[in-house]
Amino acid sequence: MVTFIGTQEMQAHLTKTRHENAIATLAGMIKEDYLRWNNFDKCARVASHSDVGVIELMPISDGEQYSFKYVNGHPKNTQAGLLTVTAFGVLSDVSTGYPRVLSELTLTTALRTAATSVLAAQYLARKNSRSMALIGNGAQSEFQAIAFHCILGITELRVYDVDPAATDKLINNLRAYPNLRIIRAGSTSEATKGADIITTVTADKTNALILLPEMISPGTHINGVGGDCPGKTELHPAILDNARVIVEFEPQSRIEGELQQMPADFVVTELWRVIDGSAAGRENEQQVTVFDSVGFALEDFSAMRYVEKYVVQKDSRILDLIPELQNPKDLFGMGAAAETSKPASPIATENAVPISA
Amino acid sequence: MVTFIGTQEMQAHLTKTRHENAIATLAGMIKEDYLRWNNFDKCARVASHSDVGVIELMPISDGEQYSFKYVNGHPKNTQAGLLTVTAFGVLSDVSTGYPRVLSELTLTTALRTAATSVLAAQYLARKNSRSMALIGNGAQSEFQAIAFHCILGITELRVYDVDPAATDKLINNLRAYPNLRIIRAGSTSEATKGADIITTVTADKTNALILLPEMISPGTHINGVGGDCPGKTELHPAILDNARVIVEFEPQSRIEGELQQMPADFVVTELWRVIDGSAAGRENEQQVTVFDSVGFALEDFSAMRYVEKYVVQKDSRILDLIPELQNPKDLFGMGAAAETSKPASPIATENAVPISA
Repeated sequence: MVTFIGTQEMQAHLTKTRHENAIATLAGMIKEDYLRWNNFDKCARVASHSDVGVIELMPISDGEQYSFKYVNGHPKNTQAGLLTVTAFGVLSDVSTGYPRVLSELTLTTALRTAATSVLAAQYLARKNSRSMALIGNGAQSEFQAIAFHCILGITELRVYDVDPAATDKLINNLRAYPNLRIIRAGSTSEATKGADIITTVTADKTNALILLPEMISPGTHINGVGGDCPGKTELHPAILDNARVIVEFEPQSRIEGELQQMPADFVVTELWRVIDGSAAGRENEQQVTVFDSVGFALEDFSAMRYVEKYVVQKDSRILDLIPELQNPKDLFGMGAAAETSKPASPIATENAVPISA
Repeated sequence: MVTFIGTQEMQAHLTKTRHENAIATLAGMIKEDYLRWNNFDKCARVASHSDVGVIELMPISDGEQYSFKYVNGHPKNTQAGLLTVTAFGVLSDVSTGYPRVLSELTLTTALRTAATSVLAAQYLARKNSRSMALIGNGAQSEFQAIAFHCILGITELRVYDVDPAATDKLINNLRAYPNLRIIRAGSTSEATKGADIITTVTADKTNALILLPEMISPGTHINGVGGDCPGKTELHPAILDNARVIVEFEPQSRIEGELQQMPADFVVTELWRVIDGSAAGRENEQQVTVFDSVGFALEDFSAMRYVEKYVVQKDSRILDLIPELQNPKDLFGMGAAAETSKPASPIATENAVPISA
């Protein structure tokens, strides 16, 4: 039997735990997993593209546990009242191949993305960072704001979105954090001016130029979250040319990240090296740093570990997703009727394949 | 909301519908999908291997619907009372990326594998085929036996397994089919002698030599089901050298099928060409034909269509796998507590990432 965590369990968990604690704990678990990078069997995610979006599968294994996430990205969904990004995932035993936990990962993806952003920023942002521009005030924006406020110590947030209603919603949701001063900017350049950190988390599937070189002051850390798919970028390539660029998993980021705009030999550093100390994070106070975040399966592996450890309760729901048999070779006996005594003979139902081809 | 079909719904469906009708209908739907082969965005499945087994993801899309299957293969599981193969799958809308149906696919995989086997045999076996050897009498064997009996007109089944208890179980389960004469053989060579069709469906993850050239009479059709993973084959390569070999999706079969034993330029024909008439099936009565079946994502796409059309009922279970929001940009508002009035400030929980890196 498989344990199921739906959106109701995740909502209840977040109400009890609070988002900032969930994100902080998750960041710790993601760090643990990045520190054992070479234990993982990794691949770029498997994407199925259409004109309006993408559906992706993100598998990974450390040899003991296996996880995958299903995630879509459909920027125009909001027009139909649907989420741009939805997700769910599974955690399995490698030794048996049996799934153990099936979980909602829409809320959890927003948590783990914010956790990864703040983890990277701890190595890349200037230590005295206090102000952050937040460009894109949609579904993931509060999670980023709370993470940088509560964990990294950001006290001033400059927010901008082309949709004013999205900014209204963000500001309203952040009222619970009175120590965070929120400045509503009239444009991206106004929001970014003098900010220590710039987080971009926009949704359009286009090669956008959300950030231009003239908006970037020396010493800025850019947390680029929204450019995560072929044909979906947020930064002018000249920004990358003049920055130290950190990625999650280079083969995937070359396809999906801001990095898709750059030559194949453009030098980047993988995040795990920065975390384990084998590569530098920020090298000086004047350097511009970019975390070209696209989301990597390892972070969802950590998220599924989190769900199993902190969200699964004694009274979690159980699903009959996998058969339980007395005799594992008797799958048929399980599905067969108790009274299959009526003799059968060659048949031809309406939709059936005819006997001769 | 996502509709859930668990093993209880699938069991109830099979009790009502009977296996042979489900398999016949499924074979028709698989045929429909093979006939529109070029509409599908296809890839070889994504496998995560360990010493004891494999976990695979099998995505596919026709531009309107997307499906994937999770399936494991762990031959030693039966020793622990677990199934060798378990599976589940999802059917989604390409236009929104939202999953629509989540279903058990363990029973369904056995049904669709038998449906594909019988579909291929309609083009490859001699028209007057009446006897079939069935080597490997485990979890999938009854499904193969019933498919070939009820749809292809096989009236004599010669069964063999290294585990006599597996054969006992098969014979007992097939009592509901009194028109099928079952002969219990003492060895593979005894079972295969003079058989019109040979189906191999064994589980060991090894380069086994279940079938040897001297066992194969002219005109035999071999339905090779159990060789479906790197290092897991059932046929002596010389059998392939002297046969017309049909595969599902050549790039995947080169990695996983009996074909893995052959040179890269060994000629094979894809099943869809045989079905649409652009390539021959069996060319003469003396030819040995091999359907080198490994299982392809298209068949699971058909299976998910079947589940949605025939198994989903008005009273099917509904899962909150994906959030439903009033405002799709307000994911946070959904997960937030009603009473998040307590002001928050930078925190450091036990497992949290410390503020400075």
